[in-house]
Amino acid sequence: MSFIDPRGLAFLLYDWLGADRLPERPRFAEHSRETFDAILELSAQLATDEFATHSKKSDREEPELIGGQVRVIPEVKRALAAYAEAGLFAASFDHAHGGLQLPHLLLTASWAHFMSANVATAAFPMLAAANARVIVRFGTAAQIAAFALPEIEGRALGTMCLSEPQAGSSLADIKTRAERDGEDASGRRYRLTGNKMWISGGDHDITENIIHLVLAKIPGPDGALISGTAGISLFIVPKILADGERNDVSVAGLNHKMGYRAIPNCLLNLGEGTAYKPQGRAGAIGYLVGEEGQGLAIMFHMMNEARIAIGLGAAALACRGYRQSLDYARERPQGRALGSRDPSAPQVPIIRHPDVRRMLLAEKAYAEGALALVLYAAKLVDDEATHPDAAERARSGALLGLLTPVAKSWPSEFGLAANDLAIQIHGGYGYTRDFDVEQTYRDNRLNPIHEGTHGIQAIDLVGRKILRDKGAGLVLLGEEIAKTAASAQSRQLLAGYAAALEKAWDRARSAAETLIDLNDSARAQENASAFLSGFGHVVVAWLWLDQAVAAMALPDDMFRKGKLHACRYFFEAELPKAAQHLAFVAALNDVAASMPEEAF
Amino acid sequence: MSFIDPRGLAFLLYDWLGADRLPERPRFAEHSRETFDAILELSAQLATDEFATHSKKSDREEPELIGGQVRVIPEVKRALAAYAEAGLFAASFDHAHGGLQLPHLLLTASWAHFMSANVATAAFPMLAAANARVIVRFGTAAQIAAFALPEIEGRALGTMCLSEPQAGSSLADIKTRAERDGEDASGRRYRLTGNKMWISGGDHDITENIIHLVLAKIPGPDGALISGTAGISLFIVPKILADGERNDVSVAGLNHKMGYRAIPNCLLNLGEGTAYKPQGRAGAIGYLVGEEGQGLAIMFHMMNEARIAIGLGAAALACRGYRQSLDYARERPQGRALGSRDPSAPQVPIIRHPDVRRMLLAEKAYAEGALALVLYAAKLVDDEATHPDAAERARSGALLGLLTPVAKSWPSEFGLAANDLAIQIHGGYGYTRDFDVEQTYRDNRLNPIHEGTHGIQAIDLVGRKILRDKGAGLVLLGEEIAKTAASAQSRQLLAGYAAALEKAWDRARSAAETLIDLNDSARAQENASAFLSGFGHVVVAWLWLDQAVAAMALPDDMFRKGKLHACRYFFEAELPKAAQHLAFVAALNDVAASMPEEAF
Repeated sequence: MSFIDPRGLAFLLYDWLGADRLPERPRFAEHSRETFDAILELSAQLATDEFATHSKKSDREEPELIGGQVRVIPEVKRALAAYAEAGLFAASFDHAHGGLQLPHLLLTASWAHFMSANVATAAFPMLAAANARVIVRFGTAAQIAAFALPEIEGRALGTMCLSEPQAGSSLADIKTRAERDGEDASGRRYRLTGNKMWISGGDHDITENIIHLVLAKIPGPDGALISGTAGISLFIVPKILADGERNDVSVAGLNHKMGYRAIPNCLLNLGEGTAYKPQGRAGAIGYLVGEEGQGLAIMFHMMNEARIAIGLGAAALACRGYRQSLDYARERPQGRALGSRDPSAPQVPIIRHPDVRRMLLAEKAYAEGALALVLYAAKLVDDEATHPDAAERARSGALLGLLTPVAKSWPSEFGLAANDLAIQIHGGYGYTRDFDVEQTYRDNRLNPIHEGTHGIQAIDLVGRKILRDKGAGLVLLGEEIAKTAASAQSRQLLAGYAAALEKAWDRARSAAETLIDLNDSARAQENASAFLSGFGHVVVAWLWLDQAVAAMALPDDMFRKGKLHACRYFFEAELPKAAQHLAFVAALNDVAASMPEEAF
Repeated sequence: MSFIDPRGLAFLLYDWLGADRLPERPRFAEHSRETFDAILELSAQLATDEFATHSKKSDREEPELIGGQVRVIPEVKRALAAYAEAGLFAASFDHAHGGLQLPHLLLTASWAHFMSANVATAAFPMLAAANARVIVRFGTAAQIAAFALPEIEGRALGTMCLSEPQAGSSLADIKTRAERDGEDASGRRYRLTGNKMWISGGDHDITENIIHLVLAKIPGPDGALISGTAGISLFIVPKILADGERNDVSVAGLNHKMGYRAIPNCLLNLGEGTAYKPQGRAGAIGYLVGEEGQGLAIMFHMMNEARIAIGLGAAALACRGYRQSLDYARERPQGRALGSRDPSAPQVPIIRHPDVRRMLLAEKAYAEGALALVLYAAKLVDDEATHPDAAERARSGALLGLLTPVAKSWPSEFGLAANDLAIQIHGGYGYTRDFDVEQTYRDNRLNPIHEGTHGIQAIDLVGRKILRDKGAGLVLLGEEIAKTAASAQSRQLLAGYAAALEKAWDRARSAAETLIDLNDSARAQENASAFLSGFGHVVVAWLWLDQAVAAMALPDDMFRKGKLHACRYFFEAELPKAAQHLAFVAALNDVAASMPEEAF
């Protein structure tokens, strides 16, 4: 079952983000709210029928490595076949490539259904789409035909191969070598040797072919690899080569994860030459994408799309836990209303207890706040690519860059916090595998880690997105926040929040300025995490207020009340936390940095 | 391996809590620091050799129900046999019962070693001790001989049977019936029928006998059960009766938990009469403990001991995760120092990265703060029972009552937060079952739930411990806090924290007064959780400052620096959170309570 409330999703897409106006843009001209809704309805249905149904089984029966081949339960293959048959792999690609030219915003909304139903199975199409998008954008026509189209048609799946055992987040230290090996129909050919770690979907028996996008270094004339990230190039390394031969890519092992188990996570050996020797010799055959040395810059396109998708997965799981704990709280009788003196009265459903209500409201504020954030980011993806005004395209791109680390990390942190509350509402039952919230919590625990931990996102935000451009992106965001505050100011119910938001934004901007003025990126990064935590809360408060402004235009029903109450909760219970984080940054707190290593 | 740093533990016990002066009291006269240390050393060794060694296996091979009998892996039985052989089951009991009359503080410190090694196996002796203590205190001589002594000698284990499927936290609603069935050598005999849920150690093949302490209701003359908690009585229900016959207690099922798996968690059916008919008829034979209707009051003695022990387990797991992530951070090379421009320089251990250091410092502040809190509570247990001054005994009892919900809930919440950071420090590895931190996190997730959730502790704190006595306990705590602040004031390094603590305490007291003045316990409890969160942070800040005062007396080495840094961290990064929670309470925030049920 999809756990994304259709009314809530429609509110975010149409009432709030104005998705129904996207078909005014030429790229989306064949679409309408009707086609959007048809795709969302289909997605909810498929998610319910094919993805949710094997969620528990895929947790219990995790992928296995048997005779060099990874096997997943057959239900995953069936679900992805249905996904392919519905044309969803192609949804956001060009007509020319057989796609539907669906806006990224709508693709993201469609994914929300699948991720809420089964986040780990939904990771397959997410990775395939992000992988194919890189090839379509940076590859040659031959590469697109050979490698992207099978993914767009759902006949092949894709991976991103960055990390290595000795280089997790430190990509400058990768050691995979790519040595020139002539050229064939698919482009400049290389032989790759090395080990790639943490490869989601690195092997499986779902599709015959798997398109790996691999970062590697081309050695210089002296045979040495260039230090740092400048020497990194990007290669397409298919599991099966064009002539049907098996490439020299072997699975060295599987990681046994706490959750998120429908998709295997592999250690891949490239170029070992033990099991496979394509065209008679060791070395994984790979095709250069773009130019030498552009690897990391190109891969960031896939990574940025994946980062927003990770935030989406975390948000979708938060929605799932919210819905399940809400249902439980409405059904489970336990105790009596506080203040009731009659022990013989029947028990009440636990939603009547103030503390359960507090937890549900926090879940709602986290889940819907996170979903709003990732949808907003997805809308920026569309605006950067298709807004009719060039200045708006540039502006959207700058905002997207600034918000991507937040869209990845905030939902990951607070989606998990929501799932923690969902367990708590279930009491002891929530800790057992008989109730879904237990697995949801384990599944979601991955999200603050993969595609860059919270700490890595913080370094990205402070180092790349704030220090490097001297706060230019912040100015744009400040303008957006001011617009929302101005709209809210004129509505009596919201005026107080508008003032609180402006004050919080001043604090965030001023903390950022302190970091910029410091002119010392190493010291600035000592408080990068605190900045991300404070900044993230201000951003989500802004989006909650913006949602509340949109909700004020609705009829005064329970849906609107729920939105306004959640907004109020966020401003009263959550936003004050931002002040504390930002004060920490503004003081350039060095308590952790100054502690002697031996004193731990 | 035990993950409790012996130096840190000795600091808390002796330098801080003055445990070496306990042997001045008659009950502990045969003890000395030497006997204490010998027991702690033995505990660390046994924990390392017998408990840690099967931690992973007990997670992988959880208890099974086979033919009506629960089976656990044999390593658990071996560990408990070694524990029994060392005389540790008896450690804190009277000489007259074969015990060592060890102070509760030292028993708690000993348990910390076992819980850090294997929290779920260590739950067996904890439950047996708390169970036997109730029987020793409230049972008859015959009951002590028949049921407590086997536990003290390690030949039987014990449980607490409170919850029922329809009555988790709402004990007023239990339906288990106890009908009078004469009398025998073990006392007033009853026949019990009902279902008991969430029974840790409810069945196993470790010891032949299991001593269940069961809450049940004795029907009135009309056969009806009395509503509310006043009708609850307490019964000893042994698995095996004095004559060797099997009692009418069957295992209806096992709960399959996220972690904490070495100890089975059972649904028990009492009095079904299908598998067992003691003395020819259905009905579980139970012996009344104390008087009719005193059940809940007596059971609270076991529950309070168990609550502190839950806090201890959470603290011990936090220490485990801290130690393991610290070792990892010192060994794992990744990336370069921030600001380093030379990508060809060797990678540095990740402890050099400011964000890793921040996470380690937070872990240390949580783990050692939580351990200090539970040890302080354990010292109050001793002071309540054995302080030479009657006024101090009463004072200690009042403080213990006030602090018990904090000692249970704060470590449970922040011990888990520490384990979350331990995973984060490990990156992707932390999410795999190949590293211990993954299991530690799952194990610790139980602690905010069992023996009363965070919300239940909050109701206990606000309802019973603050409103009911009109803040009398708070006055005593305020005096303790003032003493610490006065000692800190005179030390330049700590004077600022002393002022911050006093300010925070004022906020807590004033929020409590707001709740008392409200004179409406139902409304007061709307913000009970927020009060517990704020109050808990103030209490732990106080204990950190008190530790820092004690540390100032040590030589200026890395250990002392570590303590002072962690104290500073707590005051700068954590204590500000309390202000926010307490402001929420002071404003009598009703955002959650006022939300219409249909708006969720």
